[in-house]
Amino acid sequence: MLDSSRLRNPELFKKIVDPEKAALLIEDGMNVGVSGFTPSGYPKKTTMALARAISAGKKCRINLWSGASVGPEIEEELAAVNGIKGRMPYYAYSNRSMKVGINKNEIEYLDQHLSHFAQHIDYGYFGDVDVAIVEAAAITENGDIVLGSGVGNTPMLVKHAKRIIVEVNTSIPLSYEGIHDLYVLPLPPGRREIPIYTPRDRVGSRYLECGLDRIDCIVESDIVDHVRNLTPPDATSEKIADNLVEFLEHEQRVGRLPQQLPPLQSGVGSIANAVLMGLEKSKFENLEMYTEIMQDSVFKLIKSGKFAFASGCAFTPSPAVMQMYNEDPDLYNKHMLLRPLDITNHPEIIRRMGLIAMNTPLEFDIYGHANSTHAMGSTMMNGIGGSGDFMRNGRLTIFSTESTAKGGLISRIVPMCTHVDHTEHDTMVFITEQGVADIRGLTPIKRARLIIEKCAHPDFRPLLTEYLERAEKKCPGHEPTDLEHAFDLQMKFVKTGSML
Amino acid sequence: MLDSSRLRNPELFKKIVDPEKAALLIEDGMNVGVSGFTPSGYPKKTTMALARAISAGKKCRINLWSGASVGPEIEEELAAVNGIKGRMPYYAYSNRSMKVGINKNEIEYLDQHLSHFAQHIDYGYFGDVDVAIVEAAAITENGDIVLGSGVGNTPMLVKHAKRIIVEVNTSIPLSYEGIHDLYVLPLPPGRREIPIYTPRDRVGSRYLECGLDRIDCIVESDIVDHVRNLTPPDATSEKIADNLVEFLEHEQRVGRLPQQLPPLQSGVGSIANAVLMGLEKSKFENLEMYTEIMQDSVFKLIKSGKFAFASGCAFTPSPAVMQMYNEDPDLYNKHMLLRPLDITNHPEIIRRMGLIAMNTPLEFDIYGHANSTHAMGSTMMNGIGGSGDFMRNGRLTIFSTESTAKGGLISRIVPMCTHVDHTEHDTMVFITEQGVADIRGLTPIKRARLIIEKCAHPDFRPLLTEYLERAEKKCPGHEPTDLEHAFDLQMKFVKTGSML
Repeated sequence: MLDSSRLRNPELFKKIVDPEKAALLIEDGMNVGVSGFTPSGYPKKTTMALARAISAGKKCRINLWSGASVGPEIEEELAAVNGIKGRMPYYAYSNRSMKVGINKNEIEYLDQHLSHFAQHIDYGYFGDVDVAIVEAAAITENGDIVLGSGVGNTPMLVKHAKRIIVEVNTSIPLSYEGIHDLYVLPLPPGRREIPIYTPRDRVGSRYLECGLDRIDCIVESDIVDHVRNLTPPDATSEKIADNLVEFLEHEQRVGRLPQQLPPLQSGVGSIANAVLMGLEKSKFENLEMYTEIMQDSVFKLIKSGKFAFASGCAFTPSPAVMQMYNEDPDLYNKHMLLRPLDITNHPEIIRRMGLIAMNTPLEFDIYGHANSTHAMGSTMMNGIGGSGDFMRNGRLTIFSTESTAKGGLISRIVPMCTHVDHTEHDTMVFITEQGVADIRGLTPIKRARLIIEKCAHPDFRPLLTEYLERAEKKCPGHEPTDLEHAFDLQMKFVKTGSML
Repeated sequence: MLDSSRLRNPELFKKIVDPEKAALLIEDGMNVGVSGFTPSGYPKKTTMALARAISAGKKCRINLWSGASVGPEIEEELAAVNGIKGRMPYYAYSNRSMKVGINKNEIEYLDQHLSHFAQHIDYGYFGDVDVAIVEAAAITENGDIVLGSGVGNTPMLVKHAKRIIVEVNTSIPLSYEGIHDLYVLPLPPGRREIPIYTPRDRVGSRYLECGLDRIDCIVESDIVDHVRNLTPPDATSEKIADNLVEFLEHEQRVGRLPQQLPPLQSGVGSIANAVLMGLEKSKFENLEMYTEIMQDSVFKLIKSGKFAFASGCAFTPSPAVMQMYNEDPDLYNKHMLLRPLDITNHPEIIRRMGLIAMNTPLEFDIYGHANSTHAMGSTMMNGIGGSGDFMRNGRLTIFSTESTAKGGLISRIVPMCTHVDHTEHDTMVFITEQGVADIRGLTPIKRARLIIEKCAHPDFRPLLTEYLERAEKKCPGHEPTDLEHAFDLQMKFVKTGSML
């Protein structure tokens, strides 16, 4: 039940409506912004009510804007009833109906650098935010919002919103209050620096400034964020993590990294999780993160004392780790901070701090281009997310992945990526369970030899070498590219189900 | 003759040597950094002496580091005698022997974002600068250097140099003194913001701080920078310029650009020059540039009052415009400023100011990826230069080019780029003489239809449409990509000399 700990002004109680009523604010063709980032801090009740209304005959297809992909109460519920016309700026393949809709082009998806989206809204490139739905832990006396654990683009969406629905969720611990640092960049001209110099610097407000008048209605919710447990690290991802830690130690030994490591950024998923857990066993101390999203491993490394501080735009503790948080919220609140996505991913700060950026590609090619998004060039698997923001601007950037997929039938190292999301100008180091290819300072052909030798699975090395040697003879040049055979491996997979 | 206006401390005269003697400092395998950026502000005498020594039997191949491509007294002279082992961070196809060497992989060329190179030297990724050769207008009493018109990476190269040769060039007007603003970013941790908020902000020194002790020797020079005249705009580039001005006016009308345009960045070459001259006839006033390099048009627009200020890392006036400068140096000095390359191209500043960035690609594809570097995937034509820095970080980014090349036999719009330097996430607007394709907010298939309709030459529209429609049927997905036929046009060109 909503009480005065959640609604801190008596006026707010008058705004409570049921989700069905709130959903009436949303009309066909509207741009609807939602709070949250991945299954964290996103509204649930209103979108589910909207999905039910659509099922019952309401004609309504919306443009859904968020921080990243959010939970199934939005993605799946609305996509399944054909309630989504457009989607920005990110999508993850785990959202099944969304995946189908996007790849049939029934849902107009626009894949963007996550640091770009808020800025592009602010510049007016996509029109107004007709309705914003914000999940909150509480609303203060003057109508400011205590957010949940997923900030994403919420501040920018609220800045531009014509109507605002707040879902106050009683499952969100009130101990989150104060963990946020919400800063909205002003528009140029006259724009100044973002005064963040270390992950722990605070520059904004603990509350999302909104005001009583702008809140159209309030919906009560108690649905818990839909966070799934991560697969525990397997032998392959542990080997990748070992290779990575060894590489970082090597960089210190040769003097290219200082003894105190720069702040880290890490992508998401099982490998990223394994890599972070690999740091637990390393000799590195007092680590800091300036990252996009923080999964279980970050909480564990804060508890163990390995991480001194972590800043991100969201965190997604699994149920077990959430319990860990609840047992000692002060510990985590002291060592974590949540910012807007355009601040966590901002090139200004990533370059200034000189981050070590670690992400996972879908495939990469012998010359060092990487594909983060499209399988076989056509099928959108996952959005590019923040990987481009960090890989372009980090001090040291590392792509790590298994060398193969589908039980060894797909090589993640190919002659040419079928879709390029990160160019050769943006990549430095590739790591698989096979080894480490540090391509800094190498010409394309030298890169190719090193990547094949150090990263490719032995089953695929002969095929990749054969391509390279033929290309060097047939299509000589700085980066020999045999247009006739560049996609042979991928086409073979499409035809036979195997690249071998 | 060098006098006390050029060498302002009597000690400096003792350091004068002939170029042959200076060249003796340079040994086989060394990393040699040179001042300058494009044919502007680069040393000439020492490298020519080195080339003669190599011709006469000296065994010496160097790694040549600079701001961008420089003049033939370095590029051609040294490449022609096989004196270059490695080259960073940029190269332009007009340097013939360099082009051959790079594409035969006899010269190890590393193509980089120009904002990255100084930073990567500073992080120690490429080793020491064994010798720096700096062209100067003068040396001050305490050994600081008055640079010429091409700053490029000179400050960073000098920071890391073990030996320093200064070529004092009496052809450089002493009126350049004071036009520079030289700022070297400190390394993290503890690094602060770059306090530049408008193109005219000064944050550094008017002199390259060096000191008497660090100068090993001084070479006298009087060779003028090798600046060629630009082709005057033809009907096609004037049409492109008209389309661009019309587009900017449209953006103002719909409220996506303010009445006072944000600072502009412009690439180089005939089209860029035509585009800037197109602004002369526009209604825009008080324009500012925050750009990489400034060619003739910038001087003309400053003289006409259309440009209120221009900041770059180099300027390259042609002989006629140089004369214009010399007639009224104060006018240009008041309205221009030269900074290091890593500051002109820094994402922090480009995003902060919200630049309008305008560059020219080699080819772009129907989905909005662009190729700036490699013909047919293999042959390095020009480096990526700063285009990636500006196109990723600008507020509004525009690629403009003719729709065809080779008298209409090559379409610059293709189904798939044979090399991707700018991904679909980084491009917004494409302009050819045919029209304007504003792809912001559009899904890949909608982008493709618009680009074909607005930008492609009518001769190629049917071929491109045929590809798209077949791909949609055969390889359905978010971005339909027919791997079997993606490069048909380029392969046809390789075989027959025509894409038609």
